[in-house]
This record gives sequence, C-alpha cells and structure tokens, in this order.
Amino acid sequence: MNRRLFFKNGSVAAVGTALLSPFDLLAKTPNVDLSGKGKKAKNIIFLVSDGMSTGTLNMADLYLNRKFGTGSQWMQLYKDNRVSRALMDTASASSIVTDSSAGSSSWGGGVRVPNGSLNVGANGEQYLPILQKFKKSGKMVGCVTTVPITHATPAGFCVNSKSRNSQEDIAEQYLGLRFDVMMGGGDKYFAANKRKDKKDLYADFRSQGFQVAQTRAQMLATHNDKPILGVFGDDALPYYIDRNNDVNLKSSVPSLAEMAQKAIDHMKDHPKGFVMQIESGKVDWAAHANDIAGLIHDQIEFDEAIKVAIDFAEKDQNTLVIITTDHGNANPGVIYGKDANKNFDSIQHYTQTNEVLLNSIHPGDSVARVKELIADGNGTTISDDDAKTVLSYYEGGLQKEEGGLYNYKKLPFKAFSEMQKKTNSVGWISMDHSADYVELAAFGPGSALLKPFVKNTDWTIQ
Amino acid sequence: MNRRLFFKNGSVAAVGTALLSPFDLLAKTPNVDLSGKGKKAKNIIFLVSDGMSTGTLNMADLYLNRKFGTGSQWMQLYKDNRVSRALMDTASASSIVTDSSAGSSSWGGGVRVPNGSLNVGANGEQYLPILQKFKKSGKMVGCVTTVPITHATPAGFCVNSKSRNSQEDIAEQYLGLRFDVMMGGGDKYFAANKRKDKKDLYADFRSQGFQVAQTRAQMLATHNDKPILGVFGDDALPYYIDRNNDVNLKSSVPSLAEMAQKAIDHMKDHPKGFVMQIESGKVDWAAHANDIAGLIHDQIEFDEAIKVAIDFAEKDQNTLVIITTDHGNANPGVIYGKDANKNFDSIQHYTQTNEVLLNSIHPGDSVARVKELIADGNGTTISDDDAKTVLSYYEGGLQKEEGGLYNYKKLPFKAFSEMQKKTNSVGWISMDHSADYVELAAFGPGSALLKPFVKNTDWTIQ
Repeated sequence: MNRRLFFKNGSVAAVGTALLSPFDLLAKTPNVDLSGKGKKAKNIIFLVSDGMSTGTLNMADLYLNRKFGTGSQWMQLYKDNRVSRALMDTASASSIVTDSSAGSSSWGGGVRVPNGSLNVGANGEQYLPILQKFKKSGKMVGCVTTVPITHATPAGFCVNSKSRNSQEDIAEQYLGLRFDVMMGGGDKYFAANKRKDKKDLYADFRSQGFQVAQTRAQMLATHNDKPILGVFGDDALPYYIDRNNDVNLKSSVPSLAEMAQKAIDHMKDHPKGFVMQIESGKVDWAAHANDIAGLIHDQIEFDEAIKVAIDFAEKDQNTLVIITTDHGNANPGVIYGKDANKNFDSIQHYTQTNEVLLNSIHPGDSVARVKELIADGNGTTISDDDAKTVLSYYEGGLQKEEGGLYNYKKLPFKAFSEMQKKTNSVGWISMDHSADYVELAAFGPGSALLKPFVKNTDWTIQ
Repeated sequence: MNRRLFFKNGSVAAVGTALLSPFDLLAKTPNVDLSGKGKKAKNIIFLVSDGMSTGTLNMADLYLNRKFGTGSQWMQLYKDNRVSRALMDTASASSIVTDSSAGSSSWGGGVRVPNGSLNVGANGEQYLPILQKFKKSGKMVGCVTTVPITHATPAGFCVNSKSRNSQEDIAEQYLGLRFDVMMGGGDKYFAANKRKDKKDLYADFRSQGFQVAQTRAQMLATHNDKPILGVFGDDALPYYIDRNNDVNLKSSVPSLAEMAQKAIDHMKDHPKGFVMQIESGKVDWAAHANDIAGLIHDQIEFDEAIKVAIDFAEKDQNTLVIITTDHGNANPGVIYGKDANKNFDSIQHYTQTNEVLLNSIHPGDSVARVKELIADGNGTTISDDDAKTVLSYYEGGLQKEEGGLYNYKKLPFKAFSEMQKKTNSVGWISMDHSADYVELAAFGPGSALLKPFVKNTDWTIQ
C-alpha cells in the first residue's frame, strides 16, 4: 500500500493493513506502543540530513565526542533507548541510487518516481504531496532548510513538478499553496531583479498576507497570526562553520535549529496540529564537494535541530519525530592507520570549508600565498608541490575539469580533498550519491510500529 | 562493567548491573523478552562478517534481490521483525579504527586492547578469552572461519598473544586448549614441512585425541565423540565465487555454511550447551583488495551461514544468535549515475575474483591476451590503454607499488578496481578499515535486552 490509498478521501483515518507509509503512522494507533503510550500523534516533525552516509553520522558523533566529551544528540537517543530504528532502502523508480527529488517524493507522495522528478511518475502521473493533504485536513504545515526552500527535498513534500530544476515555478506554486512556514535560501527564485520573468514574488507573498523575513532578526520578530516566508540567502545558506566564523553572517542568517524552533513555535498551538520537514541540505552539498569541515559541521547543525525537535516532542507528548536521510553520499569514513586519531582530530583546527578556502585562492597567487591560506584555513602545512597542483587548477581562469554537483566554478575540490586525506585520514568513494541503505529513527507516538527494514515509500508494522 | 567482572568466579550467573558485555546476555533473564520468551540462552552463535561496511551489506542484498528476486537472509530477518538491532562503536584501545585482533578481543576478552594484540593490554595485562571461560564452565566451544583458524578474529575468542602475527604459536596454543571444533584454513601453521620449527602439529592433535580433517569429505565424515581440527587450505580458503566455479575446490573445500552446520551438529546435544564463532574472514580481505566479486560472494556465503544458524536457533529455542562485523572496510558503495543499475548488474557476469584474474596475467602477455582474460573473467571489454596500464604493473616482475593488506604479490588491485568502476559503478574510499559504526543484530533469548547503540565491549540494557 502507498499513502495515496490511505489518503484517498483526503481524510486522516486508521487503516487495517500491515503496510504503512511514513505518514500513515500518524493515524495508526498501535496495540502495544512502547514509546508512545498508545497515543496517536497529532504532530509530525520529519528531519532530513540530506545525503548522509553512515560515515557522516559516525564522524559527527566522533568529532563531538573527541572535542567535547559528549557525542551527538542522535546517538544519545540510541544510547538512552528512546527511539525505534530502521534501515531504509532509498531507491527511486528509475535507479537503485536516488536523487533528492525522487527521494523526497517517495516520502512526500508515497510513490517512487524517476530521478529528477517531484511527485510526477514516468508517464506523467501526479501524486498529491503530503503537505497539501495535511493542509487540506486542517493541520498547519511547513518546511525549513539550509538550501533554497524551492530545492528538491522541501519541494518533494509540497509540489508536483516534472523537473526539480524549475525552482522559479516552484516558488510561485508556494504562493498558491499558502503553507504556514516556508524558510531557507533561494532569493534568486523570489526577487524581481533575479527572476527571469522579473516578477516580484516577495510583493506577491506580502499581498497574500505573508510575513516575509530576509534576516535572522526579521524572522525572530515574526508573529503567529500570519504565515511566514523566510529567505536568507541568494541560493543556499552558508555552511554552518563559515556562518559561525563570520560575525555578520551569524547575526543575519538563522541556524537550522533557530528556524526549526521558530516554525514549531509558530504552529504548536494549532488545535489540529502540524506537520513539518526540517532539512539540513548542505550535508549533501558538502559530500558532493568532499568538503569535510562542511560535512561535519552541517551534520552538527542538523544535530542541534534534532535537539529542538525532541525537546518539543518530549514536552508535547503528541508529536512523532522522524530522523533520517534520503540517501548516502560519497560514503566518507576515517581510514585505518597509526595516525588515524591525530589526523581525524586535526579537523578540529579547520576554521572554514574548502568552499571558502578554495574561493580565496586566485589565479596568479604565489605558492607561498596558497600555502599561507591553507595553513590559515586548515592549520596544516602542505608541500610546495601540492600548492602548485592546487594553483594549476586556477590557471586559465578555473577551466580545468573538476567534479562535484554544486561546483559551479570548477574549484579543485577533489584534488584538494585527496591532499587533505594525507593529514586527516578521511576518504570518499566519489562525489555523488550512493545506494547504501540508510539510518532512520522514530520517536514518539507510533514509533514502536517501525520495522527494522523499510522502503522509503512504505513502512511495515507488526 | 566488562565481562571479566561478570565472570570473575568463572561461573555463569545473573548480574544486577545495567551494562552487559555481549556474552553477559547469556545469563541475564530479561523482565520483558519479546523475542526470547523470558528464557535464558543455553547456546550462543556469534557470526562475524569481517570488515563489512554498510555498503557491503547493502550490495550483497541488492545483488541477490536483482538476480534472484529475494534479498539476503540478514535483511529478511529485519523485514520479518525477528531481531533486535544496534549500531556498534568498534574502536580499539589505541585507535578509533580497530584492527581485527583488537576488535575480536573487545568481544572475546571484554576489554579494548591496542591494535595488533589478542587479549593483551598495553602494559601486558592478560584478559581471559571468552571460549576458555565457557569451556571451563562446562560448555562445548568452537570457531569456524574461511581464513586461517589461527587468524585474528577466531584467535580473539581463544587466546592471549601480544601479536596476532604469531600464528604458529597460536596453533600450538589451540592444541593445549582442546576446544571442540576448530575449522578454517592455515595449513602452513600446522604442517611439519611448513612450520619454522618443523613440528608436526597434525600428529600432535591426533595423539591428543582429535579428529583431523583436511578435506570436505573428511570433515563430513567426522564423528561426535572426539574434537575436530579442520584445516582446508594453505592459508585462507579460496574466495567463495572461485571455489564454486572450480569443481575440484568445490568438492574438497567446505563452504562456511557447511562448516557451521557440522560444528552445530557436533555440539548441539551437549547437556551444558555450546558457544561458537562463525567468521566470514575474506569479506575483509576482499575489501582490502577492492575486489567486488570476492566481496559480494563472500558476503553471500556469510549469509548462507546465517541461515544455518537461524534455522537451528529457531528450532532449538535456547540459542542466542549475534550477527555483526568487527569494523567497516573501504566503505564501498554503488555510485549515482544514469547507468548505475546496469553497471551494478554487470557484476552478475563476473565469474572470478580479481585475485584469480590478476594472477592469471603474466609478464610478457600481449594486450590482446590481457583483454581476453578480463573479458572472460568480467564479461567486460576494457580499452587497449587500460590493458596496457594493467600490464605495466607486471613489467619487471610485479615490482610496482600497489596497496592492500593481503596483496603479497603486489598485484594491481587498486588500479584495476578503478577501471572496473567505470563499468560497475562501485567505489571504495581506501584499501583499509574505517571507523564507521557498524550493524549488529541479535536473535533469540536475551536479544530484547540489546540497546540501539553499543560499544564492542559493553552492551547496555533497559
């Protein structure tokens, strides 16, 4: 069964089958619910660390443990035996390795669609997105993310689109949908001076009764009486480590935890409850760039959002929290060797992502200058030969071929991560998604129904 | 708490603490035991797929699913909701990335020791191995493996040794220990004409009342009245795919499942029960060699041994089965791309491991000959340039540097796996172990006590 059948009359009702989609858990009262005390969930918070391989979860926990003596919130939930767990098969309709739009559609529309599509099947079939269903049933709904709010993972909960790339169109669809909280990046899909059609979507949202926030302060000042559109960056928000190391960014751009807290506060008193997605979208982008500081710190940012969700759900007692990822990416891991501990700990000295570091290098820079920039950013000295190799990518204006999905400037991410491996012991299989089964945890009413192995479309219960 | 305290009087007794080692589960009756019906386990079967990253588990399941329409036994246990699961932190005393001897010692001695050591601490502390304890308490005990029976993982359950490399000495220790079933490879550590000291350990074992089996037929003909030493290969046993594609090997070398079945049959009627380890040791070796056919097929061989163990435990009702790995290795995974499905499925046409294939190439072979051998072994045509690159490693007698722990001949495993990646979409982060948290499943009495996150020394219970 998929969730379309369950929701075929647009109502939220109990089902008598053994197969449930993630959100079907909402309406299913378990016979024996160890963690939810037999209650039905009124609210759902669905947390996605996009593109999180097992090693990403592991390295963030190791990093926190070794630096602060306490591991991640996610692993603490396991240590305290407070959640149910599953391995999830993340395939799409077209491939054993999904992209984020098909991944989110599997959850959000209940049916696997081809890679690149948002709730539209290979023959044009349209599957109604979960937040539209819940909105219609009277709940408040929303998404917060660190990438454009029009990006694949939030969009998979919200809209139908043949192509995830139609982000200007998706921004317009959001206007008509009138969801209660939509926050992330993506100014270029809303601003009149950036959109191809020159439409001023901010003006349209305001005229439709939205509060529009474009800074952290504006977001914190929003009220609960009108829906919120929050857009805090031209494209994605900055990586967490770069945001936190820049006073201006830290004061102007909210963290994922702050957006999550605002969204929960905005919707928590609604009599019919709420459903929301919280995405750490740049864990995926960092994996695409083999950018270890981006990866670990954005996973830590995600972990802080977990704390916000669990703290609320624990107090509320009526909220199902799901914590997962849509697919693996690059399968990073710490590699065996006599210096593995010391090398892994050297990442604690990184003060910026490779994205910021490599963007600070320019054609014509001297070898000494490149070495100085890398020493500043990583606390590590590289050899003259390695510095020359880095520089070679900038000769002729960054034309040399380099991989990575979001690497618009063709920066030498791969070459540089190979150099970093010598001193941080972290390896990557590629700059793209993997087919690995992924981790999923559930907390609160209904979570005891989770079986240990699920597809991204269906969860089986006892 | 560690298991030494629990066993400090050499007896198996209930404990009143919240922390249990894997084997402490044996004596702990849960208050509410969902899967064990409140019983204590009489027997324990501990299954180890050595060096199994998440992607290895995933790819074996995917391979079986796509080829036969039914996935792995391991995942079926999850789909049927018949096991408890945990993520396990596999670190050793000396490193966040363990080796197999320290990994097995954590389970087998209950205390983390430095890499390379078998139940001996950094200052020479000796931790009594679990099978010695259980033997003393009156149970039958044993190990079966596809690598030398003296290798790190079985040895960690059996002996103390400062160095895992002392395999001739470990073979002699086994003689004195008189365990009930010890089977795997390692002829070179037992045979008079291969040992440095020229001792004929087989004669010694026979004179001490052992049945010695050196072929599959001899193993199948053993009786239950005397202990068994089974040694079926000079070093490790052949990879499963190579064994199955060679009529002589298939008839002379037992599979892991056959060894497991024999060991269970040998010990199952003992009034005081039995404890045994079943190891698929060459999943690790294949990961060290980035050898995908070796990896997937040896993981499938492990999966067949799971079936033997579960079938017995299900009927017996008194057996705790633990299924896990000691650490990740190389974090392999299927990489995103439009041909990911087709490419991954091409592995179904591989008829041999890269070990056999690369050993069939010789200095002086023509490019056409190399291409022909690879087409025969992989069902894939490689380019002339790639064939020339492969050949270049053989020039000058295999002197060119190549990695991989068990790559004694310096064959071009890494270079060749990079070529295969173009047509099978499988990537690897390295040729060595990783720090990833790993999968652990428990079936039978006591399994409901398992918490979702454990260290390799201690399991926490509710």
